[in-house]
Amino acid sequence: MSMNTLLEKITTYQNPTVAGLDPKLDYIPEYIKEAAFSRSDDPLDAAAQALLDFNKGLIDALCDIVPAVKPQAAYYEMYGWQGMRALTETIAYAHEKGMYVIIDGKRNDIGSTMEAYAAAHLGTTMVNGREAAAFGGDCLTVNGYLGSDGITPLLKLCRERDKSIFVLVKTSNPSSGELQDRKLGEKTVYEAMAEMCEAWGEQALGRYGYTSVGAVVGATYPEQLKELRTKAPHTFFLVPGYGAQGGGAKDVAHAFDKNGLGAIINSSRGIMCAYKKESCDEKDYAQAARREALRMKADIMSEIKEIRLP
Amino acid sequence: MSMNTLLEKITTYQNPTVAGLDPKLDYIPEYIKEAAFSRSDDPLDAAAQALLDFNKGLIDALCDIVPAVKPQAAYYEMYGWQGMRALTETIAYAHEKGMYVIIDGKRNDIGSTMEAYAAAHLGTTMVNGREAAAFGGDCLTVNGYLGSDGITPLLKLCRERDKSIFVLVKTSNPSSGELQDRKLGEKTVYEAMAEMCEAWGEQALGRYGYTSVGAVVGATYPEQLKELRTKAPHTFFLVPGYGAQGGGAKDVAHAFDKNGLGAIINSSRGIMCAYKKESCDEKDYAQAARREALRMKADIMSEIKEIRLP
Repeated sequence: MSMNTLLEKITTYQNPTVAGLDPKLDYIPEYIKEAAFSRSDDPLDAAAQALLDFNKGLIDALCDIVPAVKPQAAYYEMYGWQGMRALTETIAYAHEKGMYVIIDGKRNDIGSTMEAYAAAHLGTTMVNGREAAAFGGDCLTVNGYLGSDGITPLLKLCRERDKSIFVLVKTSNPSSGELQDRKLGEKTVYEAMAEMCEAWGEQALGRYGYTSVGAVVGATYPEQLKELRTKAPHTFFLVPGYGAQGGGAKDVAHAFDKNGLGAIINSSRGIMCAYKKESCDEKDYAQAARREALRMKADIMSEIKEIRLP
Repeated sequence: MSMNTLLEKITTYQNPTVAGLDPKLDYIPEYIKEAAFSRSDDPLDAAAQALLDFNKGLIDALCDIVPAVKPQAAYYEMYGWQGMRALTETIAYAHEKGMYVIIDGKRNDIGSTMEAYAAAHLGTTMVNGREAAAFGGDCLTVNGYLGSDGITPLLKLCRERDKSIFVLVKTSNPSSGELQDRKLGEKTVYEAMAEMCEAWGEQALGRYGYTSVGAVVGATYPEQLKELRTKAPHTFFLVPGYGAQGGGAKDVAHAFDKNGLGAIINSSRGIMCAYKKESCDEKDYAQAARREALRMKADIMSEIKEIRLP
């Protein structure tokens, strides 16, 4: 699925949000863990099964109201190859349910190594004359510190296979300024990175005015969001930091253009752990996630009113 | 194994090099691929088996002369969870043979997500009261673009479990300067990153004067290597770019201190594909790799003469 398709889904659902699937074991209801642990003697395999079962429940409850999911690779890698298998199965299940999948891997390397990451997460690979997809995501988060050599291998898949990427520009964490806010002459490092995103995206401009090369810009830095929305007009934003990290609807409102497009806002813990916040029965975790997703949608839409395709 | 242990191994072997295990299928002898492909119907599983068999042969041939291996995660991820299983088994095998293992993953994230990557690659995780290790590396390459929030979670494992990291500072690729060479006032971005490495390493200074926080500095930029060796005196360097990318022994010589310590030089394709360059029987690939590893060692040692622990 292309970035265009993501924008269409956002418009259809009138919901510019993405559910982060960062399934820490602590977030998973006991009944799911107990069932998974009883099925496997291998701790990593048992954990991976719990992750997958938890995710499937969330996807079922969200797929008709939320356009996309964003699994965070780290929480799957933590359980080794068994966890990576759960990631693969989560992505396949989300696709079955029609969701757009952003793999949050923040991958970065150069040349043929970056091509290997691109094949892994967005493309396919040939083995003995047969084509196989490894993870099969629609979109991957990447780190541009290495420059064009790290991004160019992905642009081919963006053009030829309708895939997309989000490049880290201004991240949501407190220490993001240590490097990103420093001045390169007139400009900050994050502005320079945003300009590179605009340049990389030029060869992959979509029909709604945004390219396949998006940027990660944190909700916790609303002034920078506003500044970057103007300076990078063709760059779609993935915005972490809403909710648990402190960003509110008024903060993220700066990420949108006059059509209510321009960004997708992530919530991970808020949605996954809604059942804990509500103190409802843990077996109701998926419906609690749905209630929180609807609340978040209403919160953000109260600022941007309507989303229209240009 | 700690960075101290790596320095001791380098000194014992009088060999400051690491063999990159980036097993592209094209690099693997036909007889290994044919055997693997005949054992499995699943293309990803078949590829992963070929990777593992190839790696084991290399490790057997190198383990008494080369102190470390550096598997590049991308070439395993490319084959999905099946490839990640081959990575896990490669690391376990290298450890059986006494080698130090640097996982080249260039991971980066913040807070609890970075803790998950740290647990995945260097630590352990608890599942239902049982402790399990996912990949079990000694050292991980990381990207510091996100600042301290991305590095701090790793320092705990460096201190408490004798693990180490290499942070990308000045990478070996042609476009590395697009961001890394730009000026932040008086300093370049890569100098700022090297200073951050020195600061992060302060809490994990080892007995030979180097900390657990190393830096990646490419052989293709010898002037910067020389400059950084002086400016980051406690930061051990991982140096890619020797051989295929164009760096020679005279270039990498700048990475070492007066004791011949201070850096480990990587070669991937040069070692893995030595049998192709030699045009020898492909069944002799591991011995060809050994010959190339010895040639590389002699080449670099001709510049630095002797390695001594201070």
